[in-house]
Parts: sequence; C-alpha cells; structure tokens
Amino acid sequence: VKRSAVVELLAQVRAGAASVEDAAEILGRSPVGELSYASVDVHRSLRTGVPEVVYGAGKTAEQIVGILQALHAHGQDGMVTRLDAAKAESVRAAVTGTVTWSPEAGVLVSRVGAEPARVGAIAVVSAGTSDAHVAAEAAVVAEALGNIVTRVNDVGVAGVHRILGKIDVLRAARVVIVVAGMDGALPGVVAGLIRVPVIAVPTSVGYGASFGGLAALLTMLNACSPGVSVVNIDNGFGAAYQASLINQLGS
Amino acid sequence: VKRSAVVELLAQVRAGAASVEDAAEILGRSPVGELSYASVDVHRSLRTGVPEVVYGAGKTAEQIVGILQALHAHGQDGMVTRLDAAKAESVRAAVTGTVTWSPEAGVLVSRVGAEPARVGAIAVVSAGTSDAHVAAEAAVVAEALGNIVTRVNDVGVAGVHRILGKIDVLRAARVVIVVAGMDGALPGVVAGLIRVPVIAVPTSVGYGASFGGLAALLTMLNACSPGVSVVNIDNGFGAAYQASLINQLGS
Amino acid sequence: VKRSAVVELLAQVRAGAASVEDAAEILGRSPVGELSYASVDVHRSLRTGVPEVVYGAGKTAEQIVGILQALHAHGQDGMVTRLDAAKAESVRAAVTGTVTWSPEAGVLVSRVGAEPARVGAIAVVSAGTSDAHVAAEAAVVAEALGNIVTRVNDVGVAGVHRILGKIDVLRAARVVIVVAGMDGALPGVVAGLIRVPVIAVPTSVGYGASFGGLAALLTMLNACSPGVSVVNIDNGFGAAYQASLINQLGS
Amino acid sequence: VKRSAVVELLAQVRAGAASVEDAAEILGRSPVGELSYASVDVHRSLRTGVPEVVYGAGKTAEQIVGILQALHAHGQDGMVTRLDAAKAESVRAAVTGTVTWSPEAGVLVSRVGAEPARVGAIAVVSAGTSDAHVAAEAAVVAEALGNIVTRVNDVGVAGVHRILGKIDVLRAARVVIVVAGMDGALPGVVAGLIRVPVIAVPTSVGYGASFGGLAALLTMLNACSPGVSVVNIDNGFGAAYQASLINQLGS
Amino acid sequence: VKRSAVVELLAQVRAGAASVEDAAEILGRSPVGELSYASVDVHRSLRTGVPEVVYGAGKTAEQIVGILQALHAHGQDGMVTRLDAAKAESVRAAVTGTVTWSPEAGVLVSRVGAEPARVGAIAVVSAGTSDAHVAAEAAVVAEALGNIVTRVNDVGVAGVHRILGKIDVLRAARVVIVVAGMDGALPGVVAGLIRVPVIAVPTSVGYGASFGGLAALLTMLNACSPGVSVVNIDNGFGAAYQASLINQLGS
Amino acid sequence: VKRSAVVELLAQVRAGAASVEDAAEILGRSPVGELSYASVDVHRSLRTGVPEVVYGAGKTAEQIVGILQALHAHGQDGMVTRLDAAKAESVRAAVTGTVTWSPEAGVLVSRVGAEPARVGAIAVVSAGTSDAHVAAEAAVVAEALGNIVTRVNDVGVAGVHRILGKIDVLRAARVVIVVAGMDGALPGVVAGLIRVPVIAVPTSVGYGASFGGLAALLTMLNACSPGVSVVNIDNGFGAAYQASLINQLGS
Amino acid sequence: VKRSAVVELLAQVRAGAASVEDAAEILGRSPVGELSYASVDVHRSLRTGVPEVVYGAGKTAEQIVGILQALHAHGQDGMVTRLDAAKAESVRAAVTGTVTWSPEAGVLVSRVGAEPARVGAIAVVSAGTSDAHVAAEAAVVAEALGNIVTRVNDVGVAGVHRILGKIDVLRAARVVIVVAGMDGALPGVVAGLIRVPVIAVPTSVGYGASFGGLAALLTMLNACSPGVSVVNIDNGFGAAYQASLINQLGS
Amino acid sequence: VKRSAVVELLAQVRAGAASVEDAAEILGRSPVGELSYASVDVHRSLRTGVPEVVYGAGKTAEQIVGILQALHAHGQDGMVTRLDAAKAESVRAAVTGTVTWSPEAGVLVSRVGAEPARVGAIAVVSAGTSDAHVAAEAAVVAEALGNIVTRVNDVGVAGVHRILGKIDVLRAARVVIVVAGMDGALPGVVAGLIRVPVIAVPTSVGYGASFGGLAALLTMLNACSPGVSVVNIDNGFGAAYQASLINQLGS
Repeated sequence: VKRSAVVELLAQVRAGAASVEDAAEILGRSPVGELSYASVDVHRSLRTGVPEVVYGAGKTAEQIVGILQALHAHGQDGMVTRLDAAKAESVRAAVTGTVTWSPEAGVLVSRVGAEPARVGAIAVVSAGTSDAHVAAEAAVVAEALGNIVTRVNDVGVAGVHRILGKIDVLRAARVVIVVAGMDGALPGVVAGLIRVPVIAVPTSVGYGASFGGLAALLTMLNACSPGVSVVNIDNGFGAAYQASLINQLGS
Repeated sequence: VKRSAVVELLAQVRAGAASVEDAAEILGRSPVGELSYASVDVHRSLRTGVPEVVYGAGKTAEQIVGILQALHAHGQDGMVTRLDAAKAESVRAAVTGTVTWSPEAGVLVSRVGAEPARVGAIAVVSAGTSDAHVAAEAAVVAEALGNIVTRVNDVGVAGVHRILGKIDVLRAARVVIVVAGMDGALPGVVAGLIRVPVIAVPTSVGYGASFGGLAALLTMLNACSPGVSVVNIDNGFGAAYQASLINQLGS
Repeated sequence: VKRSAVVELLAQVRAGAASVEDAAEILGRSPVGELSYASVDVHRSLRTGVPEVVYGAGKTAEQIVGILQALHAHGQDGMVTRLDAAKAESVRAAVTGTVTWSPEAGVLVSRVGAEPARVGAIAVVSAGTSDAHVAAEAAVVAEALGNIVTRVNDVGVAGVHRILGKIDVLRAARVVIVVAGMDGALPGVVAGLIRVPVIAVPTSVGYGASFGGLAALLTMLNACSPGVSVVNIDNGFGAAYQASLINQLGS
Repeated sequence: VKRSAVVELLAQVRAGAASVEDAAEILGRSPVGELSYASVDVHRSLRTGVPEVVYGAGKTAEQIVGILQALHAHGQDGMVTRLDAAKAESVRAAVTGTVTWSPEAGVLVSRVGAEPARVGAIAVVSAGTSDAHVAAEAAVVAEALGNIVTRVNDVGVAGVHRILGKIDVLRAARVVIVVAGMDGALPGVVAGLIRVPVIAVPTSVGYGASFGGLAALLTMLNACSPGVSVVNIDNGFGAAYQASLINQLGS
Repeated sequence: VKRSAVVELLAQVRAGAASVEDAAEILGRSPVGELSYASVDVHRSLRTGVPEVVYGAGKTAEQIVGILQALHAHGQDGMVTRLDAAKAESVRAAVTGTVTWSPEAGVLVSRVGAEPARVGAIAVVSAGTSDAHVAAEAAVVAEALGNIVTRVNDVGVAGVHRILGKIDVLRAARVVIVVAGMDGALPGVVAGLIRVPVIAVPTSVGYGASFGGLAALLTMLNACSPGVSVVNIDNGFGAAYQASLINQLGS
Repeated sequence: VKRSAVVELLAQVRAGAASVEDAAEILGRSPVGELSYASVDVHRSLRTGVPEVVYGAGKTAEQIVGILQALHAHGQDGMVTRLDAAKAESVRAAVTGTVTWSPEAGVLVSRVGAEPARVGAIAVVSAGTSDAHVAAEAAVVAEALGNIVTRVNDVGVAGVHRILGKIDVLRAARVVIVVAGMDGALPGVVAGLIRVPVIAVPTSVGYGASFGGLAALLTMLNACSPGVSVVNIDNGFGAAYQASLINQLGS
Repeated sequence: VKRSAVVELLAQVRAGAASVEDAAEILGRSPVGELSYASVDVHRSLRTGVPEVVYGAGKTAEQIVGILQALHAHGQDGMVTRLDAAKAESVRAAVTGTVTWSPEAGVLVSRVGAEPARVGAIAVVSAGTSDAHVAAEAAVVAEALGNIVTRVNDVGVAGVHRILGKIDVLRAARVVIVVAGMDGALPGVVAGLIRVPVIAVPTSVGYGASFGGLAALLTMLNACSPGVSVVNIDNGFGAAYQASLINQLGS
Repeated sequence: VKRSAVVELLAQVRAGAASVEDAAEILGRSPVGELSYASVDVHRSLRTGVPEVVYGAGKTAEQIVGILQALHAHGQDGMVTRLDAAKAESVRAAVTGTVTWSPEAGVLVSRVGAEPARVGAIAVVSAGTSDAHVAAEAAVVAEALGNIVTRVNDVGVAGVHRILGKIDVLRAARVVIVVAGMDGALPGVVAGLIRVPVIAVPTSVGYGASFGGLAALLTMLNACSPGVSVVNIDNGFGAAYQASLINQLGS
C-alpha cells in the first residue's frame, strides 16, 4: 500500500472509524509498503528520462506497439531491444512517440518527452567487426539512458598496438564497456591500461571451440587484471545499463 | 514487526499516544509485516515438533552447540545434518536437549519437547548399498519431521524383480523418495508402478562417467514416467523436506 | 495373468483337469500377474476422467487422429501436447470427441465423456512473459487432469514486490508450479514464502549463458529454500502431472 | 602388395629375374603386405553377402550412384544409410542392382548377388515411438548383414511390465540391441533380465535436459547391470554392425 | 517363489491341503515367479564357476568377509574388485575359501569349489603402462569368469607398429578388450584390423584436458571403425563381463 | 623509458651530445614510453594508500616476507590474500610494517605509511554463513583500498524478508557486492531493489549440482535484473577491487 | 610514429625548432613507435606475396569487394575465406585483381602482383571425405601463402594401412597438417610415424557424441605422440597459417 | 623385419635355401618392415643426443632407475619428467649416468654420453609466477633436446607493457612457447607481435571458473591472431617437444 493509504488508514483508526484489529489485518496483508514506495521512485525516474525497456525478440509488432502506447499514455518513453528492421518499420508507423531507430543495434527508442541531456563518459570498445552489433546495442542503449558515449572499434589483441593507440580515449572515460568474441582477451588488456571499471561483454562470435561465447565468457571471468566484471553473452543492453549506473553515480 | 507489535502501535494511535505520522513512518520502515507474521507462524510450527535444521558440515561442534542451545532457550527443537561421529559426540555431551543420533544418516536431533506423533506414509527406496547413507539421511529427517517412514533398500533396476517384490510397500505410501546413483534409473521405474508422487535423489555414487552424480541427475530429469520431480545430488534432506510437505498436505 | 485366471487354473489343478507340472509352467510364464492388475487399474482411472496423453511434436495429424480415435473407441478421453495450430485444426476436424484447443499451451483435449469435476488448488506462477507458453502448458494440462488452477504471471524476482503482492494466491494453493527461465531464481523465493510443495520448471528462455535452460535448471536444483523439486527444461506437462498427483492425494 | 604379387616377386628372385637388392627395395616399400591380405579377405566377405556401407547424409544422389555402380562393377553389393526419400528415389532409378529401400530406417540396399541367408538371432528393442527410426536403422542394417532380427517396440521402463511381457523374445536372442532416448534406462533393465550381451544405443530424443542424447548416453554407460556396452548417439548402424559381429561369432 | 515351491504348492492344492483361494493369494503376492526362476538359474551358474561379484571400494574388510562367508555357506564362490592390499590381507586371513589375490588388478577371488575350466579366447590390450591396472582388472575378472585370456600391453598408437606386430594375437581372439587413456585412439585402430567385436574401456589417465577420461570416452564413442562398443571409464570389470558373455555365447 | 630519461636524451640531442640517429635508435627500442609513465602513475597511487596485492596461496612465508620487505623498502604498503593462519603468523613476526591480519578473510595488510582515509560506501552482502569467508575477503580488501564498508550477512532469498529488512543499508551504498553460493539468486533480487551497481560473486558452496560454483555463476550471469555484473567464483578480492574503482570514481 | 617521423622530430630538437619539453610530450603520446615499425614490416611482407586475409562468412559481397579494392589500391593481394559460391561470383565480377576461386575450399584469392614462388613442403592429410572442405581450406590457403602442398585424402585410422601406404609422402614434408573429425585419432598416429611437426585440425563432423567437434578436439590435445599441436575446430585457415610459418622458417 | 633380415631371406630364396612359399609366408607375417626401419632410425637419433623420455608421476624410484639403467646399458641417455624431489634424490643416488636435476621443472636427465650441442633459439614465455613450473618443464626439456632456450617470465597481459618490453627477445627466437593460466590471453598477444610460430600451453592455475585450465585452453584455441597452436593443459613437455621439432627443422 502506498504511504498515503497507510496514513488514511491510521487516521481512521484514530477516529475510531476502523478497529485496531481490522487495521492490523489490513496492514498484515500489505507486505510491500516499502516496495510500493520503491515503485513510485521508479516512476519518478522514468519521468526524468530513463525509458522503459522492452525485449523485442519474441514479441510481435502489435504487442510492442501496445506496450509503447501504454507507456506513452503515462507520459513515459519506451525503448525496444533486439528488434529487426521489419518490425521496427511497423512500430515506427504505429506509435505516437518520437521514434529513433538504430538498425545496427536493433534498438528503437520512442519518446514522448525530450531526450535527456547526456552526461559523463562511457567508452564502448569492440575487438572485431563481427562484434559490432553487440557493441552497437551497448552504445545506443547507453546513449538512450543519458550517457555520453565514445566508440572504439576493431582493436582486438591480435594487434595490441591498435588498443594502445586509443589509450587517450580510454583514459578519458569514467567506465569502459569492452565487447569481444573469439578469445575474449581484450577486456583484461584494457583493464591493465586504465584506472576505471571495465564491463566485459562476451559475444558468441567464433570458430567451433568458442562454443557460442563460452570461451570468451570464461576468459573474461579469469581476466588477470582486476577491475573487470562480466555480463551475459551478447548482452550489450546489460552492459550499457550497468555502465550507466556507474557513470551516473553521484551525478 | 510482529503482529502483536502492530496491534500495540495501532492501540497507541487510537489512544492518541502515537501520532498518525509517526505510526505511518514506523510502519513504512517495516515492509516485512506479513513476513514477520510468517516467521511467527514458523515459530509456532517449531513448537509443534518441526525442529530447526542446521547444516553441520562446515561448522565446529562449539558452533553447533551454540545454535542448539539458543533454540532450546526458545523452547525449540534442533536438527543437524551432515554431522560426523566425532562432532556428534561432542555435541551430545554438551547440549541440554534429548539427543538422538543416527551415524548412518549423519543426523542428530536434540529436542526439548516431546517427539511429534508421526503421520501418513513415506517410503524411502534406495537402489544400492552405496546409496545407503543418502537414503538414511532422507529417512531420519523425514521421521524427525513427523512422518511415518518405511525403508526399501537395495532394489536397483539391475534386478527389476526386486522392486516388483516390494510393490505393496510402495503402493501403501502417500509419497515415495527414490535414491539412486550410477544410472539413476530407479525413480522412473518406480513411478511407472505407482500412483503417488516420486521425489528422486541422484547420488554421487558411480564409476568415472557418473561425473559426480550428473549422469543420475540427468536420467531422473528425463524420466519417461511422469510423476517424478528431482532434488539436488546427494540431497536426502531436501527430498525428505519436500516429501514431508506432500505427506502432511491437508493433515 | 489376472487373479480370476489364476483362480480358474488352480481350480483345474484341484479338479485334476490340469497337471501340477503344466500349471507350474503356465504360472512360470506369467511374471506380470500383479502388473496386469495395475494395467486394469490404469484403465479404470482413465474412465474416470484422466485423459491419455500423446506427445504431439513428432507425429503427423493422421497419426494423432488415429490414436485419439482408438482411445475414443474404448470410451477414453485423449490429450495431445506440443501440437501446433495447423495440426490442431486437422485433428479437430477429424476426431469424433469434444475438442478443446489451447493455442498458447499447444494442448488439445478430445473427450468422449464429460469433463471431470475440478478439485483442490494448484497455482501456476511464471517469471516472465517469455515463459508464458510453458506455464500455459502446465495450467491447461493440470485443468484437464481435474485440478482447479490459478495463474500468476510475470512476477520475476527482478521486482520482488510483484511476487509478494500475490502471496494470498500462493498461500491458498495446495501445490505451486513455478516456471522460470533466465536465472531461474523464482522457485526458491516462492518456496521461502509458503508452506506447500513447489514444483519448479526451468525454461530455455535467456541470453547466451542460459545454455538452453541449463542455468535455470541448476539454479532450481540448488535452491536455498527446501520444498522445491524440479522437472525437465520446458516440461510444463511433467510439472502439471506431478502437481496433480500431489493435489489429489487422499481426495 | 597382395600375397600373389609377393610370391611372383620371390619366384623372380629365385629365377634370377630380379636381384636381391631390388626385391628388398620393393618389399621395403610395401609395409602393408599383411594388411593388403586383410583387404582381400574383406573382398571375399563382401562377395559372400556383406554389403559395403555408404554414409548417405552428406552426399548427392549422383555421388551415391557412382559409388554403388563402382561396387557393382566389382560384383559387390552396396548399402547406404541416412538417406532421405528423394535421394533414395533418384538412386533407385539409376543403379543397376536390385534395390530395397526402407523409408523408416533411411537405409537403401542395392545388390548384384543374391541376398545372404540370415542366421542367429538379434533382438532390436526400442523404448518409445520416437526412437523408432534409429531402431529401424539398426534392424534393417542387421538384416542386410545377414542376421535374423526380431523387433520389440515401445517397451520403455515407464511401464516395466511391457518389457517383462516380452521376456521370451529377449531370451531367444544371441545379442540384444536396445535403443532408448530420454532417460536411457531400458538397456540396464533388459540386461538384468537376460544372459546375453546388450548393445545400447542412446538417441537424441527428449526434452531440454536430454542435451541431444547426452543424458541417455551417460545413463547407459553407468548402467547398474553388467553386460551393457554402448555406441554413439543415434548410431543404429554401429549397433547393428557390432551385434552382427557377435551374432556371427563362430558361425 | 522358486519353481520347486510353486510345484509343491500346486501339489498341496491338488491334494486339498491348500485351498484354491489361499493358493491364489500366495501366488498373487509373488509377481516374480519367472524372475525367481532366473535367480535359480543364476544360482546354478554360480555353482558351475561364476563367482558372485562384490565391489570392494566402499566396504570394510569385515563386511567383505561377511558377504564371502555367506556365499560360501551356500556353496558359492565370491569375487571382490577394487580391493586394496591391506583389506585383501585381512580378507584372506579370515575367509574359509581358497583365495587368489591379484595386487595389480585389485581383485580377490575366494572359491569353495574348483576353478572352472577356461574356454574361448579374449585378448586384453592396453595402450600404456599407466592403463595397466584397469587392464589387469579386466584380465583377472575375465579369467575368473572362465575365459582364456591373452594380454597385450603397451601398444599405443604413438607407435602404430607395436599393435601391428601383435596382429596374430588379436586375430586369434573371439573378442578383444582394448583399454586406453589419454587420446583413447587404440580401440578404433584395433577394430580396423580384426573381424571380432572390440569392447573399449576409457581410462582416467592423462594430462589436464583428458578431464578424467572424458576425452578417451568420447574418442571411443566416435571411433571411425564399426565394431567398437564402450563401457564406463576405468570399468575393467564391466568390459570383462561383457566380453565373457560374448566369448561364451553358444558354448 | 621513463619521461625523465626521454627529456635527458632530448637534451643531449639538442646539446649535440647524442646524434639524431642514435637517439632515434634508442627511442625505437622503447615502445613502452607511455606505458612506463603509466607505471610511474601506479607507483604514485601506491604511495597514496593503495597497497600492492600479493596472492598468498602458492607462496611460502619466506617468499611473502621478501615481497613485502621489497615494497616497504620503496615506502609502499603491501596486502596478501588467501593466506592461512600459520603463514600469517610467520609473516607478522618477520616484516617491519604495521600488520593487520583478518583470519576470517585470510587477508594480511602490512603498512609502512598511515592507513588511508576511507571514503564512500560499499555494502558487502552475503547469502549464507558458508559464504562468509569470501564476503570477508571482499570486505577486508575493500577497506584496505580505502573504502567505507558495511556488511550484511545471512540474507539469502530463502527468506526474502531478511534482505527487505536491510533495504536502508543497501540504499545507502554507492555500490553493493553480493556474495552467494548454491542458487546464486541473491544478486538479482538485490539489484531489483536498488539503483546502484551490483557486483556479484558466486561461491563454490553447495550440494552436488552446484558443480563448484558453476550453478551460482550461471544464475548471476542470467540475472533478470539489469545492474548486475559478475566476477570469478570465490573471487572476493576481484569484487572488492572493482567496487573500489566504482566507489572512488570522481572522488 | 614511424621512424622517419622520429628522426625528423629529433632533427628539429637539435635545430632548436622544437623544444625538449614539446618533443618529450609528443614522444610520450606515441607508445606504438616500435609497433608501427612492425606494421611497416607487415606491409613489406604483403608486397612480397602474402595476401591479406578476409573472413568472408559474415560479410556481403559489396563489403568484400570494398576491402579487396582498398588492398589492391595499395598494391597488395587479398584472400577471402569462408566464401560461398554466389558471393564469390559477385566478387569475381567486381574486383580488378586476378582472381582464383576454390569452391571446395570456399577460398578466393585476388592478386594484383604475380603469385609468389612456392617453397618447402606441407602435407595436408584428411581422415575422411566429410573432412574434405576443411582440408581444402588448409591446402588452398597454404598454397596462397607460398608453400608447396601435397594432399593425402581419406586415410582414417579405421584402416591404418591407408596411412602407412602414404608414409613416403608424409616423410617428405617439413610440416604435416592433419584434419580429422569423429574420433580425431589420425594426428596422433601420424605423429608417431614421422619426425616433423603435426598441426592437428579437429572438424565438426560426426554422430551425436562428437558434440560439434569437441570429441576430436580433446582427442588431439591428448594425443599420445608428442609432436602434435592443435588449432580450433574446422579452422583450416589457422592450420595453414601456422604450417606456413613453420615451413618458411629460415627460408 | 629389418632390411638386413629381408636381404638375407631373399638371398636364401635365390640360393634355394628357402622355398618361395615359406618366404612369402614369413614376409606376410611381417607387416612392420618399414616401421622397424623407423625404429632403427629412432635408435640412431637417441644415440645422437635425444634422451628417451619417462613420465615419472606414477612410477616408483626403483622402476625409474630400472628404465634408466636399461637405457644406459644400450648407450642411451634418459630423461624423466614430473619427478618429485624425494624420488629424484633416490634416482640420482642409484643410476650410473651423469645426472642433472631441475627441482623447479621436476625434470631429471641422466646421460651416458656428452650433452648435445644446443642450436637455434626457443623463447619460453610465462604469464605469471604461478605458471613457472610448467614453463620450467618446457625450458628444461627443450634444452635437454638440444635447443638454445631463453626464458621470459611474468609478462602477463594485465600489464601489456611488460611483454612489449621483451619484444627483442621474442623476435630473436625461431619458435616461442607461451605458458599461461587464468585467462590464457598471452599467446594471442604474443603471436600478434612476432612472425614465428607460437606454441601455447594452458595451465591449470586460476580461480574457480578457470575449471582446471579449461578457460585458458579455450582462449588459446580461439586466439584472434593466427600463428598459435595449442598443446594439453600443463603440458610443458609436449610444447618443448613440438618447439624442438620446429626449431631443428632443416638443421
């Protein structure tokens, strides 16, 4: 129950309009008082620019439009990940918000309010061109969450001079997302070069013994450098969300 | 907050001894009102015979005695699983409750109240002699939780006539725990013979390719017969707890 | 051999119409005497409303119709799981029973008798919308087996207040099926809130490192709360069958 | 070099038509003398009825026809496994041998000689209808290799009386092939009932945690009953070949 | 019930000493009539030289002596596998049978009757010296089961000429057990050289990526040569038992 | 080469004391100019309170003392993780720094300078008492790195009210480390309650199917709540390091 | 920075045209001096015949043409692997270089210079016809890199005489690539016969328990013969590159 | 049969001292003629300095001494790997050869001849101090096989400048062995810097999710840089042997 409802109930108790026993029963049935408050807090943050996120892969364009319209009806923005081009086109045609669509990332954002100002500095680094769509998902989501994003592409450890050549960009970031498939070695190398947190994203790119990203995942969990933590395989969204929390800490 | 404390607070509100605002604040900080009530409920059930359960493997005898004495101080019984003989002896010498100790099961029960009456019917079936200690854990825990237990040992599927010869015992049960290592095939065979739920416990017994119980676990999850659900490897306690919930449903 | 046949044979022995040797030979060839009785018992239960279950995934519509018609010819109902819409349409058009079809669950029931009265209370809880079809399979099968089912959808642990808000529904059940993919954490949380058995169903939903449901499966087997047992990945049918056995115990 | 060539060379040495040095050189380059003899032996056996086996899955109809025609040109029969219906039709139309085709097994045999007499007794047992095509591959291959085959279908351990009812058939065999997916428990149960070798074939049939047959494979390797050995997942051909070797031992 | 007991009961029925109803009741309680007969058959075979097998690893010397003495009291021989030297000494000192003990194999045989005549021909081949104890278990068990055994040691594929040099021994066998760790390649090579069944035993010998024998196990299941079937890792006993069944087929 | 050396060389070039060619050669051999500067930077940070970290598990007390003394000789503090009590005692007796030793965490800190002021707020949450030593490692390391740490113990999801009761502590943190074994579900639940990053540490605690922490690891990678990233199994140090980077961002 | 730029900067320092401080700053920002030189070296080697390699699988024909034309514009050759026939045709039609295309290998080479002279001797051995395309990739790439290649096909260990018959070819090579799926046993056998390095390539060919090449991979890593090292599953290109490095050592 | 024996036999045929039939029979029984010649060749190489290698882990000091003395009796050197200090001391005291013993590597060499001259250049690089004993095994074995070895220790990718600082050593080698545990990323980085083959050795060093070296193994197989091939986990010997073959190619 929301705090206002609690206050109202207590007032009724004081006024004798509710018995102590009945009120105790009602309160006993409402274990989520504090959590409802949390929900309110979430709503507030949504109104301040963080869009609700919809996983688009298993949903029809109609379902996605329905969710977005419901969000817009409450004055909230919406974001859809893992959306293919055909469904994106259908959604864009049907929703009332201001739509931006990134085909490389498969991310669509539909806003009813103004886009939030972007703050801080997140670098999104990818090892190879095959990792590009996961890196794009991370970058586009991070921007939509209100972060300034710099992208550094194709700097895998096969030519370690490539990442060294980008060291100024890395050191300018408050948090670095590193996306890598195959051997997944890049996050550990990057973490050894900088002094801010690295969020590592293994991708499912690779020959047979990459086992759908397992090889890269294990590499990252075992990174020799401290300062690396890992999200799920191909989960650019999750990395962006975590990086956004870090980047906006205290801001 | 416990229900009694809620009632007391509400009475103070009614009496004017507490303001509505202060009471709302206090209640707002207590999101676990209902859950505390659940805790009370647990306490009540403990007083009626269900002992608190302590996992003994990583604890010293001193720590275990401390926990048991704390329970006894609140009038509650205690049960310890995965306890070796040396620690059991130390515990028995130090606690004030009435101690029963099953060396085969590694389970010690220390009671301050009377042992609960046992109800219903749980059969604990084991495939081989090597599975005996897991089956014993299941049986002793189930008895301590207030269930009538019948044990059927050494009826593995290598000689399927052995389990067929015990069919009367199986059919007399309300729920059957089946413990098996190696191929783990027994639960599926048993479930095909009876009309009550089977709780399957894989054990880590076996040659190399049992992979610590993985083979038996997968077998049980893939059992051809419906009516089988599975707990963790070697988890006799978990099977007994689940079987006790089922056996005592509605009683 | 059925008991009546045994009696008849023994009478012939007594009467001298059969030799002791011949009778010993006949009895020696009939190891499944008791089990044949079980078969009869199964038949009886089928006549009382439990439909025979057909796994539809690898069968043609023609094969399914054939099986259903054979069941109907013996006065029995039939149920088909994992059936797609096209085959369901073909089956519906061809069978003589009264057909109900759930597209979300992929379950078709064809009855020649009346639908059984539903008893007890099974709650089917799902963590996310992507788990919906597995939860639907569990719910539809449980209803077809004669159980009263309540569904609680989209209460994953990412917002733990959601499941807390449904606690009255959970506590009103005699057994709770919990369906979850990704981290599979919901069954353990639910089991910590209630006092009845939880049947956990991992689903194959998730990003890369869910490994087709393996992550959720392991989570559930390792649930911190006792009172959880697990069925195979995506096996809504198996959970419903087990829950039905539990719900109808002693009824 | 074939034995006849060795004899010829030696005769030339004796006759002085070849120098000792030259002959030593030639023989030194022919390390596979004994093995070539084996090849001759194989050829003989082929003429007596064992067809050469072609794995059809990755080959075009044209390639298969080419291989069969080459075999026929040497007076040999040919057998093709994992062949789909379309390619089978093309092959049948093009080859000169007498073709038999089993759609269920996906096996085509093209003979230029008479079919061999069948000997001994192999039982091919399958657990469920979904395992039927693997069992069919085993049965058809075993027959083509000259063995008398009896099939026992749909006798999974979920109803253990079904396999008990077939015990006479099993005991009449010299070797039993048992095909099972899901829990893979049937071979262990069968081996406990008979006194002849069991060749177990796991199949990739099953819900999620069967992991493409891994569950059944591990079950069979861990079978409680001795007298079980295992071939690869879905490898009906391999089981039939091994069973044929056993069945024809000493015959 | 044993057949003799059935005959006796039937005689009592005929004589009027037992009622038809009582006899039907007694027989109804004995679903394993045929299977008991199997047991009788086993007993007979035991009297003819096949010793009962005890897995010694998890048992005390006292338990093992108890089992052996019980067997001896029924005139039966006993065999114990996975027995260490200390326990073997204790057992030898305490049992009344004629004891033979193989330290390399860890196998003890205690007989009250004469050792059976050995028949047929089993070759036990091992790849390396580290596999020797598993090969020894296979060889000693096979001999104890009444088979003539020839051992071929240290003929791994790293020097393929070694196995080629033993080809006469291999071809003289009716069945060949091949024991190999590390790459597990030897069974496939052997099967390509001979025309009798190969029973492959993977061992847990090897560097890190042998993963406790998993590498060798997978190699053997995927052997290019047909005519290979596989038992569990390090399971020399299982291979010997299967090979004995094959070797004594029809004898 | 360090910057000062570069400056010196350039001055020699300007002064004619070094030729352009020789200087180009020297600089060409020093590809790590920028990186050496990074090293200097690391040294500076070490002097300001971040101790050098030594993994103590595989080292002797003598080796550890040697490393610490070398650090102290350069005016730097040292920290040793995974140190048992015996070695800790030896180290304490031998080093010249001011030693603090946490037996629960297995962490020893030896300082020559003053302990750094602690800043920010890191909460270290553990699910069960068995996870305590990993949580202690995280907490002690985080404090040694200059962070204010609050510990919340024994709040596993089996009783979700326990974590809800600590929500004020969690919300007061800038970053939360969550340590959990068994089902590993706690980080996802925590992340759903707060708005700051969660660093999840799986532990190797659990029954058989926890597979040494694999179950908890997969759960955490698949956490339904965004805002979770994961470090290696039992890696309390790694979590503390990452949390420290986050907590001190911008401070 | 390239060496020439370093020289120029140093000259400016000497001439007073640049300050020591500015030059130190510029050099401090150029950590990859040596590595840029490496790049130059790579370029030189490209001009001498080693084509740049493009992984074609995830790229469009347009992208591939773009990369090749860019290479050609710098006077360099290009090679594309994992290219299907349709894209190869499009590329051939559009690029300006001299194109050779191997459909079996899926490799296209487009040259603007003359093809390099081939040196040394690499043998590419494959176990079965199903491994042919991986072997072809290895062979075509090795030739394009300037090596003389001999192919030996279809010499799997099921008939070990086949590889023995090719021993002269193997012994004439400076390095041998061995490609094998299924049991992956061939590289170990080959390494035992020769005195030069073997590069082993596991392929994803096989029945169920090959697990996508895992079985062959583990076999090769555990090869009994020293002198075997392994590349990724199906990675014919990687084997060819490594073999080329070895073959051209010192040449 | 050796060539000399073949020549002798042929001479007897020519002389009429042996019949053509008998000679054909004898030659037919000697399929390993060519391979025996290989054996001779091996013996020759042993006499020229390559010691026979004994895996010491599972052998007693007495067994090892026996093998070494047998080698010495034939004038050959011997090498023992995986030998602990106690056994090394016993062996040193008992053998007649000139013994060198490396405690760090666990390698003992006992020579009767002079140590071979060392040639070429092998670099052995290790990532961390924990990998040192595997690197030492590789280095000591490589030296014993007659190669000039340079060691580069503790240059893991967590500080990539460390390996860059050793680039001259790496580029001076003809082949580089890279030993790494944890994330196993070093070989890929090294291969990107040099133009000679890299032999990668994963080690079992690491926290939980290294899974005994599996993580490092997969990383290395998936290395982004071509020019890397991999040996078994912790197999320093295997890497040294392969590197020695490469280093001595053509010398």
